[in-house]
Amino acid sequence: MATPIESRVDLAALPKEERLARMRHSAAHVLAEAMLELFPDAELGIGPPIDTGFYYDFRLPRSLTPEDLAWLENRMRESVARKLPFQMASISRDEALERWKNQPFKLDLLRDLEDGAITQCTHGSFTDLCKGGHVNHTGEIGAFKLTSVAGAYWRGSEKNPQLQRVYGALFETEEELDEYQRQLEEARRRDHRRIGKELKIFELFDETGPGHVVWLPNGATIRRELQRWMEDLELDRGYRHVVTPNVSKRQLYVKSGHWDHFHDAMYPVMEREGEEYVLRPMNCPSHIMVFASELHSYREFPIRIAEFGNMHRWEKSGQVTGMSRVRIMTLNDAHIFCTGPEMVEAEVEGVLQLMEHAYGVLGLQNYRYRLSLGDPDDKEKYVDNPEMWEKGEALLRRVLDRLGLDYFPAKGEAAFYGPKIDVQFMTAQGKEETLATIQVDFHFPRQFGLEYIGEDGSRRQPIIVHRGIISTMERMVALLIEEYEGNFPLWLAPTQAVVIPIADRHHAYARDVAAALRAHRLRVEVDDRNERMNAKIRDAQLMKVPYMLIVGDREAEARAVSLRVRGEGDHGSVPLGAVVERLRSERDGRVLGPGVHPATPAPRLGD
Amino acid sequence: MATPIESRVDLAALPKEERLARMRHSAAHVLAEAMLELFPDAELGIGPPIDTGFYYDFRLPRSLTPEDLAWLENRMRESVARKLPFQMASISRDEALERWKNQPFKLDLLRDLEDGAITQCTHGSFTDLCKGGHVNHTGEIGAFKLTSVAGAYWRGSEKNPQLQRVYGALFETEEELDEYQRQLEEARRRDHRRIGKELKIFELFDETGPGHVVWLPNGATIRRELQRWMEDLELDRGYRHVVTPNVSKRQLYVKSGHWDHFHDAMYPVMEREGEEYVLRPMNCPSHIMVFASELHSYREFPIRIAEFGNMHRWEKSGQVTGMSRVRIMTLNDAHIFCTGPEMVEAEVEGVLQLMEHAYGVLGLQNYRYRLSLGDPDDKEKYVDNPEMWEKGEALLRRVLDRLGLDYFPAKGEAAFYGPKIDVQFMTAQGKEETLATIQVDFHFPRQFGLEYIGEDGSRRQPIIVHRGIISTMERMVALLIEEYEGNFPLWLAPTQAVVIPIADRHHAYARDVAAALRAHRLRVEVDDRNERMNAKIRDAQLMKVPYMLIVGDREAEARAVSLRVRGEGDHGSVPLGAVVERLRSERDGRVLGPGVHPATPAPRLGD
Repeated sequence: MATPIESRVDLAALPKEERLARMRHSAAHVLAEAMLELFPDAELGIGPPIDTGFYYDFRLPRSLTPEDLAWLENRMRESVARKLPFQMASISRDEALERWKNQPFKLDLLRDLEDGAITQCTHGSFTDLCKGGHVNHTGEIGAFKLTSVAGAYWRGSEKNPQLQRVYGALFETEEELDEYQRQLEEARRRDHRRIGKELKIFELFDETGPGHVVWLPNGATIRRELQRWMEDLELDRGYRHVVTPNVSKRQLYVKSGHWDHFHDAMYPVMEREGEEYVLRPMNCPSHIMVFASELHSYREFPIRIAEFGNMHRWEKSGQVTGMSRVRIMTLNDAHIFCTGPEMVEAEVEGVLQLMEHAYGVLGLQNYRYRLSLGDPDDKEKYVDNPEMWEKGEALLRRVLDRLGLDYFPAKGEAAFYGPKIDVQFMTAQGKEETLATIQVDFHFPRQFGLEYIGEDGSRRQPIIVHRGIISTMERMVALLIEEYEGNFPLWLAPTQAVVIPIADRHHAYARDVAAALRAHRLRVEVDDRNERMNAKIRDAQLMKVPYMLIVGDREAEARAVSLRVRGEGDHGSVPLGAVVERLRSERDGRVLGPGVHPATPAPRLGD
Repeated sequence: MATPIESRVDLAALPKEERLARMRHSAAHVLAEAMLELFPDAELGIGPPIDTGFYYDFRLPRSLTPEDLAWLENRMRESVARKLPFQMASISRDEALERWKNQPFKLDLLRDLEDGAITQCTHGSFTDLCKGGHVNHTGEIGAFKLTSVAGAYWRGSEKNPQLQRVYGALFETEEELDEYQRQLEEARRRDHRRIGKELKIFELFDETGPGHVVWLPNGATIRRELQRWMEDLELDRGYRHVVTPNVSKRQLYVKSGHWDHFHDAMYPVMEREGEEYVLRPMNCPSHIMVFASELHSYREFPIRIAEFGNMHRWEKSGQVTGMSRVRIMTLNDAHIFCTGPEMVEAEVEGVLQLMEHAYGVLGLQNYRYRLSLGDPDDKEKYVDNPEMWEKGEALLRRVLDRLGLDYFPAKGEAAFYGPKIDVQFMTAQGKEETLATIQVDFHFPRQFGLEYIGEDGSRRQPIIVHRGIISTMERMVALLIEEYEGNFPLWLAPTQAVVIPIADRHHAYARDVAAALRAHRLRVEVDDRNERMNAKIRDAQLMKVPYMLIVGDREAEARAVSLRVRGEGDHGSVPLGAVVERLRSERDGRVLGPGVHPATPAPRLGD
């Protein structure tokens, strides 16, 4: 016999987060109610709230169709209109076993519950095993929409039966739901995994391994342009590039401490003939070896050692995704060896200026600097040296203030050995990611016993600034695909122009046009397929090519092209020489150019 | 009692190789005779002939000095002047044990000899345990010189005592000995290991591992310039660069056959969570994955996939040396997918033209093409398909002839699946190396089931041309260091110019001069150390910097520099603008420039 439990709640008095959780959990019950009408034999799993709504898992006699989802959503709205109260009750194990005797997953859940702690929730004719957390009645559920169906194993284990998981989005108001769906649509439209495949930028093969990105020719072009650009910027600023091995003896990472702190995230050891090697998890130890290969005088400092260096992280194969979460990545890495705090301050300023320049060229706006601080109360997590923390934080604050950069402090986000500045980027997918970082490091110099000859001839310990600018090549290109929605600026576009001859008799002139552009190393293709002009234009648009140069009789006659510009359309006839000049200067100036629309700024971080 | 054995020999009737072996072996006896006079307690090891002379191992009461070597050599010449006959004799084990009772290594050797097979050789007062192979008397020994002393373990095992190994060079005539010593001196002067260290081009650290090259900033500069140059040459010629992972699943190399044929030369498998990964031994399978990522039409061919791709070879740690024999290397690799034999022929021609262009720019001359053929009599080693072999060989011959290239055929040097063209280079170290190769491959397309859509719409199998141009970055830079003796052409020189202010008051103008050059991305340093001008000039010469720009009052006044050119000396005062223009055009033209003297051509290969 069920013993009712009073569970009325004043929704308006709750924090928004809990209110939403109750609405979402309640909606899951209403979904299950509807499902049992569609499939009376449906076997019910669980139905929790999630970040943007809810889901419920079911074993069903067949796969759900889009029509089923529409029917279920309508049926849910009928329940909502009836404002059915949610009634919690306590029941005995025997009653529960009887009630869910045909529901094997509920029986499975019951096994984990102690006698006296078994509760259920009823609304209308539907009763679920439930520990509570609802709104008062179905009319309080809010604005929702069933969005998708995915496969899920019972209790997340491949050994258990596979169920169908129905997802719903749910917010308090229709406006919030609409905004969420707009964002979702935007994120889907900009998803680098889809665009990366369509534009032939990268591939992932089972044979090469999960998270081992294969850069196809189009992707390798973008990567090469980015790398040469950044190398030149760094060389102009006195960085010295090196190339160091991806594989070192395990002992190197024992010495650096990576083996102790990080070896779960490392690839397995390769052992042979008494030697032990590992794929490197970080580049720091390699650059420290370069620094320590000779004894430096204070006169040589700062010593800026840079590399597009490979790093290897053992992520679970189920957790890697596209190019944004991978196992092998190439970091735009550098370590700046400094004689003392003043030099550190000047170098941090130089790094921030380089970041501002680089992100400006790329058109990135959705980022903010985070001053990641220690926590004086947490002696466990952070090195206990109040003076060092105070000095380091003051130094970083001073530089950020002097440059007038927007930043927010974040207690407890520092590295264990010192404060840092992080570049927090809000991606077009609505996720906050650390794009780059500047760390002040007193730790490795001690760990490796690094020294230099000071002005007075004595041996002194340097300080290291660790920094990245454009993150890993993998993450940056994933991010740029999404920012640009595949419309890369000319200098990065894999194909910069397509020449489209109108008829066969224009092929020769089309090749002349291509040759004129190629003479300036512009990346041009001639589309001489036996297709209609409009089909060729459409294909070039699908590949998001910045410029189409259409040539027919009049153009051949006038040594001109009919110019179509991505995002702008037809510009009419333009002399060939002017087109060459336009493309050259747009490329060499690295301007964003027509048709490039970085993602709308998302809400500022830290606000 | 010793039983003499007749061992007279007509030296002139022997092949030169055997004659030399006898002279060298005999000289080792004479060296041991001399050593016993210097150190009567010397313990003797063994003394065999080697490629360029002989050695003998000794345990001695102290380390040998250069003066000792001179004394020993003189003493040997006295023996030679006395024309002492070499007399072989058979002796019993008891006699031998008595004779060498104070020679523990000889006693050790005796243990391996069977009774009745124990022989000795006597000249003058010296008798050695020996199985023969001498000249008739010490006067027939030839022209020799003691060259060096090195450490060596008895029987090559670290568990045994360490001995001193005395090396001698020996040839038939003084002229041959002189020529050998000249070559040796040249090879030593050009040794990339010494120059690479002096010019801070690369390092090898125990911590990163043997054969895992660390490219220091100077080396990374040379490498970057070479790579960008070659990438651009390839892009201009329609190659599509890719970036593919250094690590793949083991299964990929099982499929390609590398695992079966090559796994002794591979790094160990990394196994975790049921996944097996290996460092890639070759790039072919990765490029085949790229090709197979979409179904291509005949219209897209040839498809040229290129990469500066890392390869990993498990060489014994004792066998790696400098940058010329390493474990991790980056190959200028490409695979050209062709529709049929005519396209293969055109592509092979294009590759040969690119090789000629590239080697011409680098100033390389000591190479010759080898047409590496199969062997119709060896059905074991080569695929049995006479028509395929005939066609392939004819094709390669036709291209070599059409281009008028010098080549020599070599039976039995082909890959097991087809003929190839190899670029055989004679290094400044006097070693013949295969620098690059062009292979015609019908095998992988079958192995991986590759297909394309032919002109008639049917599925067809492509043919792959494998090719390298500038070898691995490691081998090429090792070779260039030796070719140039460290005097790199301007475009490759790590530091292109040093500005040398005469006094402190010229520092500001020196910085102006550097800035004027840096504005054109020329790599310039200012030597503002507190040193005398001549010391600064000497240091820049030691670092083989192409240009020194010396600035004092007159130069600052006239906006000029006093120009010193590597290999040419003082050019007097030159206006700053003219210097900038000279360096720019020398760099952009990639001319070899002053002071660059590639190694003297060695004897042609295959003659």
